[in-house]
Amino acid sequence: MVAKVRLYVDHPLGAGQSVPLSRDQAHYLFGVMRLGVGAQVSLFNGRDGEWRADVAEAGKRGGVLVAAEQTAPLRLPPDLWLLFAPIKKARTDFIVEKAAEMGVARIMPVQTRFTNAERIRQDRLQAHAIEAAEQCGGTHVPEVAGLQRLDRLLDDWPAERRIMFCDEALAGRSSALTGHFAGGAPGPWAILIGPEGGFSEAERDRLAALPSAHAVSLGPRILRADTAAVAALTLWQSALGDWR
Amino acid sequence: MVAKVRLYVDHPLGAGQSVPLSRDQAHYLFGVMRLGVGAQVSLFNGRDGEWRADVAEAGKRGGVLVAAEQTAPLRLPPDLWLLFAPIKKARTDFIVEKAAEMGVARIMPVQTRFTNAERIRQDRLQAHAIEAAEQCGGTHVPEVAGLQRLDRLLDDWPAERRIMFCDEALAGRSSALTGHFAGGAPGPWAILIGPEGGFSEAERDRLAALPSAHAVSLGPRILRADTAAVAALTLWQSALGDWR
Repeated sequence: MVAKVRLYVDHPLGAGQSVPLSRDQAHYLFGVMRLGVGAQVSLFNGRDGEWRADVAEAGKRGGVLVAAEQTAPLRLPPDLWLLFAPIKKARTDFIVEKAAEMGVARIMPVQTRFTNAERIRQDRLQAHAIEAAEQCGGTHVPEVAGLQRLDRLLDDWPAERRIMFCDEALAGRSSALTGHFAGGAPGPWAILIGPEGGFSEAERDRLAALPSAHAVSLGPRILRADTAAVAALTLWQSALGDWR
Repeated sequence: MVAKVRLYVDHPLGAGQSVPLSRDQAHYLFGVMRLGVGAQVSLFNGRDGEWRADVAEAGKRGGVLVAAEQTAPLRLPPDLWLLFAPIKKARTDFIVEKAAEMGVARIMPVQTRFTNAERIRQDRLQAHAIEAAEQCGGTHVPEVAGLQRLDRLLDDWPAERRIMFCDEALAGRSSALTGHFAGGAPGPWAILIGPEGGFSEAERDRLAALPSAHAVSLGPRILRADTAAVAALTLWQSALGDWR
C-alpha cells in the first residue's frame, strides 16, 4: 500500500536511514494528519527517489521517521527552464505551482522592461514548488531562482539552450511550433513567457536576433500570463518533453 | 485608437444604438474607471462583434452609451464543450476563467461518482466567464451550464460529438493524441476532465465503450484538475482548434 502522505525532506534517504523532522513537519504529520508511531508516509528529497518511511518517534516539536524501502525511482524532469515575468501574487504562485506539477528543471522569475515586480519572495515560491511536488507525486523539486533582469540573463545566455518565447504580439498568427520540433532528445531548452504588458520593442528585437530563440503563438486570443505558462508548458512537453 | 475598457453588455449593438447601463456597470465605468461623458469604451454582447461606444450620459446609478462603429467582427470559438467535475471554489473559478480565455463554446460542470460538489454557483461562474472574455479581448462568452450528472449526460450523448477524456489513471502512458487528430474541420467535440479522485470503474468502462470517446494522457505526472483542464484545452486547440 502506498502511504497517502507525501513529504519532501532535505535529508538523505536510504534503507534504515533516520530522518529527523522539523517542528513544522511534526505539526503537520502528528497534529494535522493525526499520524502516530508506526504510521507510514512517503518521502522524497529530490535526489533519492520516493521512499516509504515509518514514524519512529512522534512529538509536538519534532519526531523521527525511518526510511524502509524505495517505492519509486528518481524521475528527473526534462532540462527545461521556465522564465516568466512575475505578476500579481496569486498568479505568480500559480505559475510556480503549475511548472512544478508539469515538470521543469528550473523556475526563473525575470524582470523585463514592463515587469512591475521589483522583488519576489523566493522562499515562499520555493515552498510552493515543494508543495506542488508533494501533491503531484513528483520525486524532484524544481529550483526557484532569484529575480534576474532579462537583458543580463540574455547577455550570458548559453548558446546551446534554445528558447521558446511566447509573445502576445503573436496572437493571431498560427502556431509555429511544428517546424521546430522533431523527434529525439530535445537538449536544453527554456520557455520564456512575456509580461502582461508584453515585451518592449528592444526585447522583441533582441529575442528575434537570437539564433536559439523560437517565437511561438498561443492562439488568436490574448492569454493571461499564467494561462500562457501552462499552455506553453503543455505544447513543449507534448512535442519535445516527457509527455510524448 | 482602441478603448482600454472592455465591457460585456446583454443588449443589441449597432451603429447609433443606445445602451443603458446597470447600476454596477455605471459604478465600474464612472466610479472605478473615472470615465466621463465623451469617453470611449469597447462593448461586446457575444453576438454582434466588438463595438466602440461613447459615453452619452454618466450618472451614479446608471448611464447611457452609444455604439459608434464595429471594431472587430464576432469571433466564435470552436464547437467545443468543456466538461469538468467542480472542485474547490478557487480552482473551479480558475477552470471557468481559463476555458473562457482559451476558447470554448460551452462550460459544463458535471457530477461524477467521486465529485464532492453538490451544487455550484452558476451565476457566479457565468460572471467569471464574462470577466475573462472582457479581459482577453474575446467577442464571445461561453455559456456556463448548470451542474449535471455525468451518467445522465452520457445517456443522451449526441452521437456525433466526440469526447476527449483525460484520466489520471492514464498517467505514465504516452499521449494518444496524434492518432485521433487529422487536419480539416474538427466537428463537435467535448473535453472531459476527471475529478481529483479519478473516475469510478463504472464511469471508466462506460467512457471506454463509447465509440466517440478518446482517452488522452497528460504526461507521467498527476496533474490537478485545473492544470489538466488548461493542458487538455491547449492540446485540443493546437491540434484541432483555432490555434492551428
